[in-house]
Amino acid sequence: MTTQHETDQLITAAHAAFELSKDVTPRVRSDWLEGTAAGLEAEADELVGLAMQDTHLDEGRLRGELKRSVFQLRLFAQEILRGEHLGATVDHEDPDWGMGPRPDIRRLNIPIGVVGVFGASNFPFAFSVMGGDTASALAAGCAVVHKIHDGHRALGLRTGEIVTRALKSAGAPAGLFSTVTGREAAETLVEHPLVKAIGFTGSTAGGRALFDRAAARPEPIPFYGELGSINPVFVTEQAWNQRRDQILSAYAGSFTVGMGQFCTKPGLLFAPAFDAEEVGALLQHELRSHQSSPMLSSRLREGFGQALASVQGSEGVGVLVAGDDAEAPQPTVLTTTGDVIRQRPELLEQEMFGPATLMVQYEPGTRLADFAALLEGQLTATVHAEPGEDLTDLVTALRARSGRLLWNGWPTGVTVTYAQQHGGPYPATTAPGMTSVGTAAIGRFLRPVAYQSFPAAQLPPPLMDDNPWGITRRVDGQWVPAAREARS
Amino acid sequence: MTTQHETDQLITAAHAAFELSKDVTPRVRSDWLEGTAAGLEAEADELVGLAMQDTHLDEGRLRGELKRSVFQLRLFAQEILRGEHLGATVDHEDPDWGMGPRPDIRRLNIPIGVVGVFGASNFPFAFSVMGGDTASALAAGCAVVHKIHDGHRALGLRTGEIVTRALKSAGAPAGLFSTVTGREAAETLVEHPLVKAIGFTGSTAGGRALFDRAAARPEPIPFYGELGSINPVFVTEQAWNQRRDQILSAYAGSFTVGMGQFCTKPGLLFAPAFDAEEVGALLQHELRSHQSSPMLSSRLREGFGQALASVQGSEGVGVLVAGDDAEAPQPTVLTTTGDVIRQRPELLEQEMFGPATLMVQYEPGTRLADFAALLEGQLTATVHAEPGEDLTDLVTALRARSGRLLWNGWPTGVTVTYAQQHGGPYPATTAPGMTSVGTAAIGRFLRPVAYQSFPAAQLPPPLMDDNPWGITRRVDGQWVPAAREARS
Repeated sequence: MTTQHETDQLITAAHAAFELSKDVTPRVRSDWLEGTAAGLEAEADELVGLAMQDTHLDEGRLRGELKRSVFQLRLFAQEILRGEHLGATVDHEDPDWGMGPRPDIRRLNIPIGVVGVFGASNFPFAFSVMGGDTASALAAGCAVVHKIHDGHRALGLRTGEIVTRALKSAGAPAGLFSTVTGREAAETLVEHPLVKAIGFTGSTAGGRALFDRAAARPEPIPFYGELGSINPVFVTEQAWNQRRDQILSAYAGSFTVGMGQFCTKPGLLFAPAFDAEEVGALLQHELRSHQSSPMLSSRLREGFGQALASVQGSEGVGVLVAGDDAEAPQPTVLTTTGDVIRQRPELLEQEMFGPATLMVQYEPGTRLADFAALLEGQLTATVHAEPGEDLTDLVTALRARSGRLLWNGWPTGVTVTYAQQHGGPYPATTAPGMTSVGTAAIGRFLRPVAYQSFPAAQLPPPLMDDNPWGITRRVDGQWVPAAREARS
Repeated sequence: MTTQHETDQLITAAHAAFELSKDVTPRVRSDWLEGTAAGLEAEADELVGLAMQDTHLDEGRLRGELKRSVFQLRLFAQEILRGEHLGATVDHEDPDWGMGPRPDIRRLNIPIGVVGVFGASNFPFAFSVMGGDTASALAAGCAVVHKIHDGHRALGLRTGEIVTRALKSAGAPAGLFSTVTGREAAETLVEHPLVKAIGFTGSTAGGRALFDRAAARPEPIPFYGELGSINPVFVTEQAWNQRRDQILSAYAGSFTVGMGQFCTKPGLLFAPAFDAEEVGALLQHELRSHQSSPMLSSRLREGFGQALASVQGSEGVGVLVAGDDAEAPQPTVLTTTGDVIRQRPELLEQEMFGPATLMVQYEPGTRLADFAALLEGQLTATVHAEPGEDLTDLVTALRARSGRLLWNGWPTGVTVTYAQQHGGPYPATTAPGMTSVGTAAIGRFLRPVAYQSFPAAQLPPPLMDDNPWGITRRVDGQWVPAAREARS
């Protein structure tokens, strides 16, 4: 466990590294990210081996997750060469500006400083030491102190060593990235005056407690927390009639992948009233090939058991597929009716983090948007429908409550792209305007600064008239696309 | 005073209006903003007259401020036609995407819902009922319930009536905008579940109290508060030697404009050690034409007196220009030395909201960046220097602590443009990544949503392949500029 004193030293070193490196060119920073990607790739076998021991997840999944993390670093390395994250905006002096003469004013995003990142248990690569939060904070130009999740400490420490070495080889200043462990370090991280933002992925209870601390600081700081989500799926009558078996098959796969320990697990599915015996048998059949493995930690196992028991024990909830109490639990599918949900909508708020899901049977003709209106904030919401169906009402209601909408798909699997949005209203996240996945995640760790009436020679390069970095900028209100090749 | 019950009704009506209007085209919404601008313009004489009674500010200043507010509405009306605020991003399906096949995924910003806006006392138009926060929230597509500042209630109520009528004439749904007064309404606004963000301009103490409430809600909401700022000015030795008198003249004008009741008032100026008698006489001379008027409220007058007395009574602080205790106080200029500041940097944290400022005399050869490092977060920071001087250290230190940097200018006067940044680290604001002035302010009241694998016909217009609204979008990583004329 890292002590408060040690954590303070690492944060201070991170701040010094940030001061040294905050103004390096995108090319230099991009090389650091590329170096880190290569460093992780080179040690993939060792890392995947450690991850298998720490997490009980299978090798294929872990290799895929590491590949994703490496890809993400390279995508961000390319993104910052384009200078997108800088948001460079140039307004030249204008004596005829409508409200009175306008001075020359130019805006640029700058990195905010040291970022504290809390890794999640369930993605030991993608949302951990060198996951999306760390990658986006480093891409932004920040320094990172990463709190390793207790669930994969050996892997976390080793990943930290590899990243530290790779950054050093690539020429980054010592201290730009470091890791800490334990509760004392976690609290120090959230409260340290030199820490300017927090990235967090984890439970609603844990995340909210840290959010409250961040908000209560003498200087409150942004807390980008990704917390809980049920990820409802709505199946229309037409879709159910057309392709029920196919939907059930994919559903069974999606809610059990990674033992249901995905923040995007479909924990809730609305379908027209069905024959419980028949659907139960179909799901049982689909789940026959499922290989249960122990959950990520005994704490998660215990929490899953409690949440499942609570939903399962609720009046009006029945069992379609019975799981068990094993350390590596078999999947459970519960069911209830639309009437029960209307009477006790709080059933929609109980996340069962593990291999369990709840099917709500609605009466044919029911307005699905009315159920959507009962939902809390979600990371995702999904509809299954047939061509030609008008789902405007439902989609609009779901849009108001989630960060990503899917059509005839499944929410597990979150690609890293320019358009990705992994976020949503509380309790899905504590910052609904932000995403923790995709290139837009970089923007969380930046802050705009305007330069007014600066002499040409004193402007930072992204704001100079001749645009030496060749980035896309908005000039006097018009976008000027980047030169094809970044020149920095 | 609006009761809790009345406030609840207005918020509920605002939510209903939001639901009705959240998906109108930019053209329709733009027309609402244009209609509001025209409505205010048509009643300018009456509004300025009311404002003069309520605030003691002079007619010229108030007419300029109203012109600014009207211009701002029209600029935002144009901005949303371009669709900038939508952040439309399209990633087509890509089977060869580096981390594995990428589904079609498209992101769009949507309005967040009802916004509570708290008007400031010191700008009865620009930061009040139809000021920057309201204008940007309406431009974003949100509904607004505005808490009128007690300091100009008659003006606020009348402005509210004019805006409500103008919006109605333009075709906006009833309830989209309304006003409330009093403390009970203020608290209801911050705590109401249907309110999804707060815009606030005011004191650090008042803003922090409301921020704490917003953060402590069951569903915490973004609180965009613009609080306190001292707005330091650094004059280099060369600049002082070259143009001391000119600097003092402009300084005297800047710190007394609006009776010093500007959030961007230069409350602090660092200059090389000088002859106090000579500089005091020069300032006295520059201030001879200053016409004091009563401050905005007796509460502000009292607070100003206390803050001034506290700084003035500090050991090592002297008086260059003596003000007085009048209801309409004469300007005060205090002075101290770099040594005193180094020993008691907390002197840099005392905002004197009114016509007073503190000049810090530094020893020739002093590293100015060391003083900058002692500052809290600021809205602005200014340097006065001569051509050829290298101020990289100082500018870098100021950049880390402020939202806008000025070169050889004065911070009062905040133009509304694309590149403007009116924000900064705490306590300047509670959301350092945001601006409350300029077109970028609209983004505060939006939230991204991604659409994954949606059929073409089910996509919202900004994300359709044929880009029917003709807006600037990022497509597969590349920016595609808007059609020259928005087609919506």
